[in-house]
Amino acid sequence: MRAASVDVLSSLQSVCGEHGLDALRSRLAGLESILRWDMQVIAQGLAELPRGDARVQRAAHHLLDQGGKRLRPMCVALASHVGTGLDARGAQLAIAVELVHAATLLHDDVVDLGDTRRGAPAARSVYGNAASIFAGDWLLIDALRRVRKARVADTLDRLLDVIEEMIFAESLQLERRGRADTSVADYFRIVEGKTAVLFQWACFAGGRAGGLDDVACAHLESFGRHLGVAFQLVDDLLDYDGDAATTGKSLFADLREGKLTHPLLVARDADRRVRDDLTTLLDGGDRELERRIVQGVRPYLDVTRDRATRSIAEAFAHLEALPEGPAKEGMRTVALAVVERRR
Amino acid sequence: MRAASVDVLSSLQSVCGEHGLDALRSRLAGLESILRWDMQVIAQGLAELPRGDARVQRAAHHLLDQGGKRLRPMCVALASHVGTGLDARGAQLAIAVELVHAATLLHDDVVDLGDTRRGAPAARSVYGNAASIFAGDWLLIDALRRVRKARVADTLDRLLDVIEEMIFAESLQLERRGRADTSVADYFRIVEGKTAVLFQWACFAGGRAGGLDDVACAHLESFGRHLGVAFQLVDDLLDYDGDAATTGKSLFADLREGKLTHPLLVARDADRRVRDDLTTLLDGGDRELERRIVQGVRPYLDVTRDRATRSIAEAFAHLEALPEGPAKEGMRTVALAVVERRR
Repeated sequence: MRAASVDVLSSLQSVCGEHGLDALRSRLAGLESILRWDMQVIAQGLAELPRGDARVQRAAHHLLDQGGKRLRPMCVALASHVGTGLDARGAQLAIAVELVHAATLLHDDVVDLGDTRRGAPAARSVYGNAASIFAGDWLLIDALRRVRKARVADTLDRLLDVIEEMIFAESLQLERRGRADTSVADYFRIVEGKTAVLFQWACFAGGRAGGLDDVACAHLESFGRHLGVAFQLVDDLLDYDGDAATTGKSLFADLREGKLTHPLLVARDADRRVRDDLTTLLDGGDRELERRIVQGVRPYLDVTRDRATRSIAEAFAHLEALPEGPAKEGMRTVALAVVERRR
Repeated sequence: MRAASVDVLSSLQSVCGEHGLDALRSRLAGLESILRWDMQVIAQGLAELPRGDARVQRAAHHLLDQGGKRLRPMCVALASHVGTGLDARGAQLAIAVELVHAATLLHDDVVDLGDTRRGAPAARSVYGNAASIFAGDWLLIDALRRVRKARVADTLDRLLDVIEEMIFAESLQLERRGRADTSVADYFRIVEGKTAVLFQWACFAGGRAGGLDDVACAHLESFGRHLGVAFQLVDDLLDYDGDAATTGKSLFADLREGKLTHPLLVARDADRRVRDDLTTLLDGGDRELERRIVQGVRPYLDVTRDRATRSIAEAFAHLEALPEGPAKEGMRTVALAVVERRR
């Protein structure tokens, strides 16, 4: 079994190599030395989730075995190292956050009728919608049970609140889908709810697992929230600009699903032709129109990247109050890599 | 707002009236006097679940507002009265069990592509599959949060285990669907997992909320488990014999969905023509064939009812060790009504 840490870091490293970001590359090497052991423990915990013939289990493992970036568990681990580090209870929290994330992907793929995920057929395409729904339910329950058993103060109550926020944000996203009048404020409400809160919880939970006090945990939480916003902005940007082979997703999926993400909203508000084309597309357009919108969006992608960079700067500000050390340096590295990533 | 208790009991009473079961009718009057207040508190708690414009909320309330039988919360309430009764914490457990049940219905309707539920269009027909999935997720999380906050010993850990069992049973049911080689043992495994465990938890949680000791709670748990099996057997029987107007479901839905339930399995094993017709139907048959199978199943329905009665007898045996009183009498009444019910 390849350890997830090696996957993630080496892929980030290769990105840096291509773009000549030598400073970030050496930073990532440092990060790997802090996290190698933790990420192996987490990958092993995920792999050891009961396997059996049940379709619900096969559907869940189908997704988990694709790996993914494992950024959320990485946040738990790094935040814990700002304190005393990742013990067995902290590792359970890290595994749990990845399971919650996987659960949302399994349900989202059914909701979005998504066919590919992480460069492979989506679980729902292989095992059916029903198995994907039940697999999501299962991973959610398994995650909650781990957090419950870890008994790290406040983590369970907060996770329940966080999952509720995620559900409401997903519901809002569904309601705004295909609506040309979606505002940038709507977009950020959705992003905060569906993505940022789970990064926020990951950093909080890691801090608590590392024995940090309330003030330090609050800073870690804010760091996680801003990091999560940046992560989603870049995700949305890559849908217009990424390489399908490396992201593992189809390009322009957001546009095709009627999701009005930041890059599209910026272009719509700046370029009348994009706005008109979008209105026509949402009424039922063709591939040619779609292509024209993508061309119209691309000149504005830097606005989204700048906005992500601003979120990263806000995240950095919350690290100020925390003790210097390799963990804090590692969190900066992850944040930089999130903005620079190409997948 | 009509209180749920009045709905349930009056509907059960009218059933008894039609069938001349005067003894049961007077029993139900007794039950109403114990439960009226509790069931009003529970109904109010369910109605007060946040309402808003979000599609996830509207989908959830669409189902909850149809009422339903509320048998699981009734079990929590009755079990609590074997002890000190239903306090605010117990009421939260009763609300939670109904929310978990509702969550499974919302997901099941998407899985089964069900169009009607409780005599009205299913939430997924009105608000879409996606909203029904998210609404199920939401109710599940809300239920867990209530149980968490109630802090009644062992109830949260057990509920997490119970929900996992339910998911696996639903998954197994999905795998066995349309398989002519489904055994009666498979059927009972599915029923125990998807239905009985939640009744079991309801009775356990009620006992704990009423301050009962481990032995009493274990008896209540077993009572609930057998009651749940009986409930499902009768549910499956009504699919062949019920009145669609009173059950609120389409008749023969199980057969159409390829669900091999107890009445069908009994008839298949007893009557060669039913077996042959079933094999043909599962390969793709027509309404005429379906009608013939239903006719072939009906002579055997008493076998299923007898099996349900046997489960009720086993449930009764577990009441022996509990103190006599109106609550225990009420539990017997509910058990009898479950077998006699026509909806």
